[in-house]
Amino acid sequence: MRGEIIAIGDELTSGRILNMTSHFAAHHLFAVGHEIVAMATIGDTPELIGSALIKALEQADFVIVTGGLGPTSDDLTNEAVASALNRPATLHPEVLMQVEAYLADSMVKDQLERRGVSLEKLAWLPAGAEVLKPEASMAGYLLVHNKKPIFFLPGVPHEMKELLTDCVIPRLAELQQGERRYVRQCLYRIFGLAEAEVNQRVSHLETHNSMIRLGYYPVFPEVHLNLTTLGKSQEETDGLFQFIDQKVRDTLGSYIYGVGENGLAFTVGALLRERGRTLALAESCTGGLISHLVTSVAGSSDYYLGGVCSYSNAMKVAMLRVEPTTLQTHGAVSGETAEAMARGIRSISAADIGLSVTGIAGPNGGSAEKPVGTVFFGIDFHGETSQVRRQFSGKRGEIQSLSAHTALDLIRRKLLERN
Amino acid sequence: MRGEIIAIGDELTSGRILNMTSHFAAHHLFAVGHEIVAMATIGDTPELIGSALIKALEQADFVIVTGGLGPTSDDLTNEAVASALNRPATLHPEVLMQVEAYLADSMVKDQLERRGVSLEKLAWLPAGAEVLKPEASMAGYLLVHNKKPIFFLPGVPHEMKELLTDCVIPRLAELQQGERRYVRQCLYRIFGLAEAEVNQRVSHLETHNSMIRLGYYPVFPEVHLNLTTLGKSQEETDGLFQFIDQKVRDTLGSYIYGVGENGLAFTVGALLRERGRTLALAESCTGGLISHLVTSVAGSSDYYLGGVCSYSNAMKVAMLRVEPTTLQTHGAVSGETAEAMARGIRSISAADIGLSVTGIAGPNGGSAEKPVGTVFFGIDFHGETSQVRRQFSGKRGEIQSLSAHTALDLIRRKLLERN
Repeated sequence: MRGEIIAIGDELTSGRILNMTSHFAAHHLFAVGHEIVAMATIGDTPELIGSALIKALEQADFVIVTGGLGPTSDDLTNEAVASALNRPATLHPEVLMQVEAYLADSMVKDQLERRGVSLEKLAWLPAGAEVLKPEASMAGYLLVHNKKPIFFLPGVPHEMKELLTDCVIPRLAELQQGERRYVRQCLYRIFGLAEAEVNQRVSHLETHNSMIRLGYYPVFPEVHLNLTTLGKSQEETDGLFQFIDQKVRDTLGSYIYGVGENGLAFTVGALLRERGRTLALAESCTGGLISHLVTSVAGSSDYYLGGVCSYSNAMKVAMLRVEPTTLQTHGAVSGETAEAMARGIRSISAADIGLSVTGIAGPNGGSAEKPVGTVFFGIDFHGETSQVRRQFSGKRGEIQSLSAHTALDLIRRKLLERN
Repeated sequence: MRGEIIAIGDELTSGRILNMTSHFAAHHLFAVGHEIVAMATIGDTPELIGSALIKALEQADFVIVTGGLGPTSDDLTNEAVASALNRPATLHPEVLMQVEAYLADSMVKDQLERRGVSLEKLAWLPAGAEVLKPEASMAGYLLVHNKKPIFFLPGVPHEMKELLTDCVIPRLAELQQGERRYVRQCLYRIFGLAEAEVNQRVSHLETHNSMIRLGYYPVFPEVHLNLTTLGKSQEETDGLFQFIDQKVRDTLGSYIYGVGENGLAFTVGALLRERGRTLALAESCTGGLISHLVTSVAGSSDYYLGGVCSYSNAMKVAMLRVEPTTLQTHGAVSGETAEAMARGIRSISAADIGLSVTGIAGPNGGSAEKPVGTVFFGIDFHGETSQVRRQFSGKRGEIQSLSAHTALDLIRRKLLERN
């Protein structure tokens, strides 16, 4: 189906806030096979909201409107819709009940009143509105106008995303097929394969079957793959999902490091915790980035002991006990130095795993033998050391990011291999 | 003036690429006093491009169109414009000359031909088009239609930004005032003051003078302030700019850490280089983030020796020589431990400045005495040590980011104070 997305809010048209929700919606709708004909962003002005909606209904099969559903005076979407589509605001008792239950806490009520906010406003929706998730305390409703569905979603990103995934995509599938459709989705997070390689390996899975959709998204330095399966019953959907999910996993193997929301540092952390292993890091060209990624995960102190960022040679000697002769003979950027750094950090920290990175992030410092982007990794896993050399290309930040991801992936693979 | 921004590209409507250029344009146009009535994003479909343009011309005083100006077959903006506004494509000899000069390099020509790209296409623009920057190898032109200016800009972000700042904003000022206007802008980067405080201190500077515009942008954890001055001549603009710039600097003082594109880590790095000082870091709750920010700057090895991320107490003792009794008596999160860490990293690295951070980033680990967000900083500046305690609030990542910025700012202030 052809859809249009309308985002509402003065904070968007003034450039104060970057509009990420329309992008999220386009991404996920495209992944399940819809075409987005246009995305519009407009301020909190009822006339503009109304005319954008009418135009969208002319050129699209469905419309998604985000923002302006809240309880404050600048939330004008409902008024605009009531007026533009001639659907006067009507009281929705089920929403009012929720609001009243929420306001039973008198402190909340007082606070809101002081701020001049009236939550009762949330219960007045355009005539014909069907609340999307009545059980959740979330604005969001469906209006079918001239046989075309219009989904009104909150502007708050996490609420909008939840309703889009849980309500909008299944309802669109139902409308498209003329009967109820059940949807199941999975986002595979892949590192180590280019988008084209992922595509080449799995694209045949969706051939000639409109109930299976694959979407490819490069999210540097990773590739994300979105699988959607549809079916006439939950059982059918789940069965198809399990079949394709297994094929995807068989085909991409350990290039898939995880599924869903969590990143590579989270996956590595979960593996370390599960195996009861501790980690210490010795970073040079990544300059603390790996340590930062590891410690972005709450609870990382359970398995991460710490690290050294040895930017100078003197620090490599003083803190990591790298022999000056190793540096002189092989250079700071070498497999030998990488291994010595890994051994050093593991012995000082008494961690199970010591991992090191040394390389040339650029823009300067490259040579014919070791051009910018040359990076060496060392691992000391309980006294067994190894080294890996990689050649990356890109800007300084890209080389650092690729190096950090590669380091985390080496730890992940080592843990998986050792069981 | 009321403007509309139209971004063109299938990569945007399919959610492959996040549209940042419209946000940039809205931000900068709003900063100089324009109102953005709508932002539209559409795919590479001539009919949709045409109808979006016609609608925009109805409701706005000016239109900015980005994308679809390139030489490949899916770049359809010029065709769409020619057809929708009835302005047949005409050859622009000055563009053709540039293209021919570029193609004089036969290798380039061969490569392009192999890819099926015809650069001559770039010289065919809708009738009446005025090339915005003839001296630069950049697509981008102005079309005045029914007395309303339409600016066509490349979709490539850095090209679009350059033309918006250098050509679009001055031309709009000229059109608005009925005569040529000269523009000068400055972006002040501020840390340590909330947006409302910045506003309160400087907003009086633009009162009753339409030639001065101030725009406020919170870019967590900083606030950015954009100053635009306008004048009838370059001298007038420059004079006004110097006057207001001095007032802004007097009012905000050292809260302004820099101007333009460069961030806090760059500013600190430049100061360290200028003063011939070296830095070493001892991080706990920031987990390597400060080191990562410092080493994101190319050439940071000139002044940054390295750092330790001592996540465990044992690492604080083994690597930073913190006395176990200090940790026992005062705790890992304390001013005493922070100072000991700073002293330790400075003595090991032999840096001029040792800086440390220890705190509770959350979500767990807080107590009544030291709740989540409690962070201690230690500085050892050539043997003179001091400590700072701060209480932050927010999520884990926000507390880490605030802590890292505060640490960099402490170094900056210490360097400025010591001259």
